[in-house]
Amino acid sequence: MANKQSNLNHVFHALSDPTRRAVLERLSRGSASVTELAEPFEMALPSFVQHLKVLEQSGLVRSKKTGRVRICQLVPHTMSSAERWIAEQREFWERRLDQMEDYVKELKTKEKK
Amino acid sequence: MANKQSNLNHVFHALSDPTRRAVLERLSRGSASVTELAEPFEMALPSFVQHLKVLEQSGLVRSKKTGRVRICQLVPHTMSSAERWIAEQREFWERRLDQMEDYVKELKTKEKK
Repeated sequence: MANKQSNLNHVFHALSDPTRRAVLERLSRGSASVTELAEPFEMALPSFVQHLKVLEQSGLVRSKKTGRVRICQLVPHTMSSAERWIAEQREFWERRLDQMEDYVKELKTKEKK
Repeated sequence: MANKQSNLNHVFHALSDPTRRAVLERLSRGSASVTELAEPFEMALPSFVQHLKVLEQSGLVRSKKTGRVRICQLVPHTMSSAERWIAEQREFWERRLDQMEDYVKELKTKEKK
């Protein structure tokens, strides 16, 4: 449980930065080298690599060195854990809205009588 | 666009902390006063109020003072923006997986011939 919480902390923290989200958007479309990923950003390479480190530490991205090139890929499973947490909350508040709707309907029916 | 990005930064940052997620879990089940929300946490009230501030600034929670009591409630719409961003990425990678599957099937069919 503590582990799951800590994972979610890292995943949501990784998602809270626009550069890191843009990298994930790019990787959702296919694997890419660090050079390809860094290209659209006006940022010093060490700063960009720092963002990649946060993404790797969160488990959202993994990378592998092939010769001189480091290829990054998305780990969809990790992103799903964040999606699942949000969806669980949505289930609760939707159920609550349904219950409120039922209650309002009940009140209206009583009024008519 | 910049505004949407900035909102997502705040929402995901708000979600990256276990106390703040626990507060959202509680509020998914119904509105609550600050005192009720703070109760399960072994934390000084000012620190807890700081977490509520982050939640309010992100737009995930809003509060209203009624007499001496401040009541907090969830803003489901804001949480949906985060869910939507993740779901969009999922659509891309699922489409990519489908394409890869089609390609593998095609290769297998060619092999049989």
